[in-house]
Amino acid sequence: MGSLREPGSHRAAGVVDDDALVAAMVRVEVAWMRVLGASNEQVAPEVVLDPAEVERAGNPVLPLVKSLRAAFGGNVHRGLTSQDVLDTAMMLLARDALTTIVEDLGSLADSLAGLASAHRGSVMAGRTLTQYAVPVTFGLKAAQWLTGVLDARYAVSTVDLPVQCGGAAGTLALAGELVADPVDAARAFADQLGLVAPGISWHTRRTPVTRLGDALVETCDALGHLASDVLLLARPEVAELREPSGGASSTMPHKRNPVLSVLVRSASLQAPQLGAQLHICAADSQDERSPGAWHAEWPAFRRLLELTLTASSQAAELVAGLEVDADAMRRRAESAAGDLLSERGSSGDPASYVGASDALIDAALARWKSRG
Amino acid sequence: MGSLREPGSHRAAGVVDDDALVAAMVRVEVAWMRVLGASNEQVAPEVVLDPAEVERAGNPVLPLVKSLRAAFGGNVHRGLTSQDVLDTAMMLLARDALTTIVEDLGSLADSLAGLASAHRGSVMAGRTLTQYAVPVTFGLKAAQWLTGVLDARYAVSTVDLPVQCGGAAGTLALAGELVADPVDAARAFADQLGLVAPGISWHTRRTPVTRLGDALVETCDALGHLASDVLLLARPEVAELREPSGGASSTMPHKRNPVLSVLVRSASLQAPQLGAQLHICAADSQDERSPGAWHAEWPAFRRLLELTLTASSQAAELVAGLEVDADAMRRRAESAAGDLLSERGSSGDPASYVGASDALIDAALARWKSRG
Amino acid sequence: MGSLREPGSHRAAGVVDDDALVAAMVRVEVAWMRVLGASNEQVAPEVVLDPAEVERAGNPVLPLVKSLRAAFGGNVHRGLTSQDVLDTAMMLLARDALTTIVEDLGSLADSLAGLASAHRGSVMAGRTLTQYAVPVTFGLKAAQWLTGVLDARYAVSTVDLPVQCGGAAGTLALAGELVADPVDAARAFADQLGLVAPGISWHTRRTPVTRLGDALVETCDALGHLASDVLLLARPEVAELREPSGGASSTMPHKRNPVLSVLVRSASLQAPQLGAQLHICAADSQDERSPGAWHAEWPAFRRLLELTLTASSQAAELVAGLEVDADAMRRRAESAAGDLLSERGSSGDPASYVGASDALIDAALARWKSRG
Amino acid sequence: MGSLREPGSHRAAGVVDDDALVAAMVRVEVAWMRVLGASNEQVAPEVVLDPAEVERAGNPVLPLVKSLRAAFGGNVHRGLTSQDVLDTAMMLLARDALTTIVEDLGSLADSLAGLASAHRGSVMAGRTLTQYAVPVTFGLKAAQWLTGVLDARYAVSTVDLPVQCGGAAGTLALAGELVADPVDAARAFADQLGLVAPGISWHTRRTPVTRLGDALVETCDALGHLASDVLLLARPEVAELREPSGGASSTMPHKRNPVLSVLVRSASLQAPQLGAQLHICAADSQDERSPGAWHAEWPAFRRLLELTLTASSQAAELVAGLEVDADAMRRRAESAAGDLLSERGSSGDPASYVGASDALIDAALARWKSRG
Repeated sequence: MGSLREPGSHRAAGVVDDDALVAAMVRVEVAWMRVLGASNEQVAPEVVLDPAEVERAGNPVLPLVKSLRAAFGGNVHRGLTSQDVLDTAMMLLARDALTTIVEDLGSLADSLAGLASAHRGSVMAGRTLTQYAVPVTFGLKAAQWLTGVLDARYAVSTVDLPVQCGGAAGTLALAGELVADPVDAARAFADQLGLVAPGISWHTRRTPVTRLGDALVETCDALGHLASDVLLLARPEVAELREPSGGASSTMPHKRNPVLSVLVRSASLQAPQLGAQLHICAADSQDERSPGAWHAEWPAFRRLLELTLTASSQAAELVAGLEVDADAMRRRAESAAGDLLSERGSSGDPASYVGASDALIDAALARWKSRG
Repeated sequence: MGSLREPGSHRAAGVVDDDALVAAMVRVEVAWMRVLGASNEQVAPEVVLDPAEVERAGNPVLPLVKSLRAAFGGNVHRGLTSQDVLDTAMMLLARDALTTIVEDLGSLADSLAGLASAHRGSVMAGRTLTQYAVPVTFGLKAAQWLTGVLDARYAVSTVDLPVQCGGAAGTLALAGELVADPVDAARAFADQLGLVAPGISWHTRRTPVTRLGDALVETCDALGHLASDVLLLARPEVAELREPSGGASSTMPHKRNPVLSVLVRSASLQAPQLGAQLHICAADSQDERSPGAWHAEWPAFRRLLELTLTASSQAAELVAGLEVDADAMRRRAESAAGDLLSERGSSGDPASYVGASDALIDAALARWKSRG
Repeated sequence: MGSLREPGSHRAAGVVDDDALVAAMVRVEVAWMRVLGASNEQVAPEVVLDPAEVERAGNPVLPLVKSLRAAFGGNVHRGLTSQDVLDTAMMLLARDALTTIVEDLGSLADSLAGLASAHRGSVMAGRTLTQYAVPVTFGLKAAQWLTGVLDARYAVSTVDLPVQCGGAAGTLALAGELVADPVDAARAFADQLGLVAPGISWHTRRTPVTRLGDALVETCDALGHLASDVLLLARPEVAELREPSGGASSTMPHKRNPVLSVLVRSASLQAPQLGAQLHICAADSQDERSPGAWHAEWPAFRRLLELTLTASSQAAELVAGLEVDADAMRRRAESAAGDLLSERGSSGDPASYVGASDALIDAALARWKSRG
Repeated sequence: MGSLREPGSHRAAGVVDDDALVAAMVRVEVAWMRVLGASNEQVAPEVVLDPAEVERAGNPVLPLVKSLRAAFGGNVHRGLTSQDVLDTAMMLLARDALTTIVEDLGSLADSLAGLASAHRGSVMAGRTLTQYAVPVTFGLKAAQWLTGVLDARYAVSTVDLPVQCGGAAGTLALAGELVADPVDAARAFADQLGLVAPGISWHTRRTPVTRLGDALVETCDALGHLASDVLLLARPEVAELREPSGGASSTMPHKRNPVLSVLVRSASLQAPQLGAQLHICAADSQDERSPGAWHAEWPAFRRLLELTLTASSQAAELVAGLEVDADAMRRRAESAAGDLLSERGSSGDPASYVGASDALIDAALARWKSRG
């Protein structure tokens, strides 16, 4: 159910929305019941949360627990605190989102590796500070984009997603009344959910959230870089690249707007503020659980996941169908050869002055092959 | 349909969501048809937009126009560009949102004026850099909050909301083929919708958006300041204020969480990033219409309106029912009199050293009475 | 003494740096002494502040007061608090900075008005979402930039710069022991310094700071928009504009980098975060004076003034010498006429389809003439 | 030469300022000369850069090269581009800064480990959403802070600092005319400087910059969390902690302001915007080298290093001398026992309901001992 003001967000449907969150919170509560030894075989009830009740509680967990207790009995949630449930559920959503993001980045990397390899010989004008510099090849440009995408994929693949399990103030005190070893129970809880064991709780130490956020922003950075370059090279005055299928205009029949690049660039302009939001919340953490800093994380966290999901998918589609006009590239390089070769101080074929481009492409492809 | 991760956002329901946007876009297209002289008496059709089509077009206007043309004929939208419609529709949403925000700030100001007046004599400890400073009165503190709210109300009341009307590249060229005086038509368009006439188009000159954004952030700043103070004074160790009705805890029966203050503070921690987002988009404007910078505005714009709507309503409710323990304030001031009067260098009743507090309260109340 | 990592910041030398701050703080203390009736005829001493002492005090005022008391006696600063002095001094720096910024924006506006007028007939390709749209004129583009600059000049010209005068906790309590009417004394203080009278203190109600910040960011937005357009149009593939004198390259003799545009665009990418910083501080205000939120304002405030000073001056220089290749514009428009006229559905001279461009230019020029 | 508006920044003196940058750039140019086989034994000249020349060039490298060529001859810088030199020099500054930051975080961690260990038995009120929750120990709180600091130390210790070495457009073309294997030369360059070999250049793929930035922001987050807690617990109404030596007030003799905590919190409120700045620049990267996005990094990069250096040092000093009033903690916990034990549903000694606090402290200390 993508918003009209977030074009493409239907690509992220079902992963991080409210229904997914409720389902994840139910999973969390059920996992904890299992840890406590309640052999619950019943199916979880349909949970519908009343927004006014959510507001009165300050978060959706209390109303959820009320629903679940009606079905499963009063032991639901015993030993946990709201934040344990919501933080853990958000990590479950993050895991699902990251799985898809990593896949999309993988497919994007494959396309880019293909371009890097196919266009080793496609000489083109290098441009710095908007002006002609020395020649490059489109293969090298693709290898640059590829390296950014591999960096991002590494970042999102290696981020830790821990359960949150501390009880009311991070001491596991009530859990300690219910099980022999509450630290062990926290570990079992993590195992149940396939998440990382928490160690000490992170109620007010938000590294797991900010590191995830940083990795997502890094991903959008890499995609934005790529999209910005495509937007420039697809301008009609340059016309060296073209989007697979452009968007129509509401008024001009000839137009073919580079919609995917536009939307990916748009995402990359939004991600940094969302990442900063998470850091502000982390810095403002107080007490055993924060009055406001925690709550201010939620929309940014959701939106950053959704945005990165959408942009990764759009970028993969964009590059898979990218039309490269290697002839136009070469023609421009040749006509600008005077400038492009001024550094060398001698004229000639721009393709003869691309330096170590091939070796650099090889290095990028080797990293790609090793799944780095 | 408030999101579970934005508690209280149901307070903004129907004002800035997708349905409201579609309705506003339809109003915009119909107003333009009237300007063009099409005496349209038909009721606008139910419009349901397909997210995939929205993405392909890069914005929701093209699919909307398709629907409307099926109902109204091919003249719908002639002379406008997508951005004319979406920008103008967002200004219509903004107007509705601002109307409610101004009302809520007015009601909040009334409550604060009541507190300022009633608590002129309620001496309390002044605190600076967390430590006791000199005495103040709770009336003065309320007058400070009031002044911030009046500043904000002034800002949101005076911001201009223009139509956008430029056609494909801001020249009104196609409109000029359809009407005698396209600049006049743009004015008539504004009149139809009760918005300000645009002058030159603002497709890539985003002052109308950023000024609105700045006014909303200023509002959240003022509310956040108030909420931060309430959170401190409602701590059990201080216990000079109390929220009207606190939120329950999922695990601790005694707890009464200051939920409204927490959520208002949370909003104030989010607004600055949203405002910065709008400015980044403004700064990155390019060409006659921007590739990405425009699109990156939409979610921030929507969210900032929703957040301010919600926080204004929550703050009004919070202050309307705020419990003030003037005795506790006085007891603390008296017991800390040694510190509070150290500046004066003589001991005595803290109430005798509140300086010009009354005159300052009067000035704030006078401004409030003049609806400033 | 411009930093090497802030090229052009020497243009702001002496306006907002540490020496200017110390001089402003001395002026503030002296003005207050006059208000208190101390007929001080002595020249203020040379003040050198020890950074370690500044840190121990948490701000530069306490060490300054120590120096001044050695020269002027113990009455210096009586009735004020550190924040009164520092906030007021920053407003003095802001006034000096704004004076220059308004002048530079005025000179920039004059240049832009000249371009708008001279290039009414310079038809060029309109570009939206990077692709050819309908024709525009370069005069209209200049009028768009002009309108943004006039918006900004209006914003920076109309912002209020109040003194801060509240004493230890905003009550003017100690001042009330020294003068008959401390509120009147605050007004006299403002008069002495040529600043606006404060009304209630704004120690934790930071509207004066954030409104100034917003106006500065708006200015950088307008300049960034202009610079982004110049950067695009000065690309060698487009070659419709050229900077007056480009920067050399460290390695390529032919290069002429559009350095001024690059630096102005760089400024516009920085300002939004600085503005957000001020709002975060405003939102986090607490107590009678804030523990940290106030301090976090200082570098952002200084930097935002310096950045806007620098960028305004650079932009004025850039536009004053901008080389416009109207022939290149027309050649491109003619060669792309098929696309540019597709909306109209008939071919011909692009110059015949620029709509209301002239009227829109006239409106912008009329506003410029009225000094709006 | 700490700025008056950045109290404590003298702690970072000489590490990231302009003199340090010039020295680092000279080191970079000399290292490259060695790679090229120039056995340069001369001492580098004193370099003084003219700000106006820096602006004309758009960066400080070109004027520097001019100076160096006067001393060393025309081969200086051959094969490099300005960005190679400036990016590499910034990595050298970063390395020096990180060395000190890691040391300060180590000393801070040692102090925190001491507190965690010493205060295992110091029961105190746990607070969530500002209200009493269940009991905790101060040892556990210290272990929480410690864990955040260890996270941060890990992050800043493991970030890669590569040389930048690509030549005019990242192809190493001119280097390839000067040496047999330019990729090998880039590796030798890295070895000379003790930095990581670059692989493909990162002129427009800014992961090295943003990852460093993210690690610094994470550090400030952890320090800000600690400082926020100290500020709360040092309030006179709570009085469970006290800064080693507070700052004086300019007007109130009794005051002892928690200056170090205030300044550390102030830093943590600034770092997120600086980190976002770096990401915006990364996302906006274009071409082979960016027009503005690169330049907008410089002040943020410098300031973020300086801020983290300062805050780490301040935090280490703060915690080393932190006064803990364990009796006050216990007294409050006992007097609030009714609330603190409401979750358990039975009364008694709060110290009997601290759950797994000891085990969690042990885990944190074990990580600290393993230098994790």
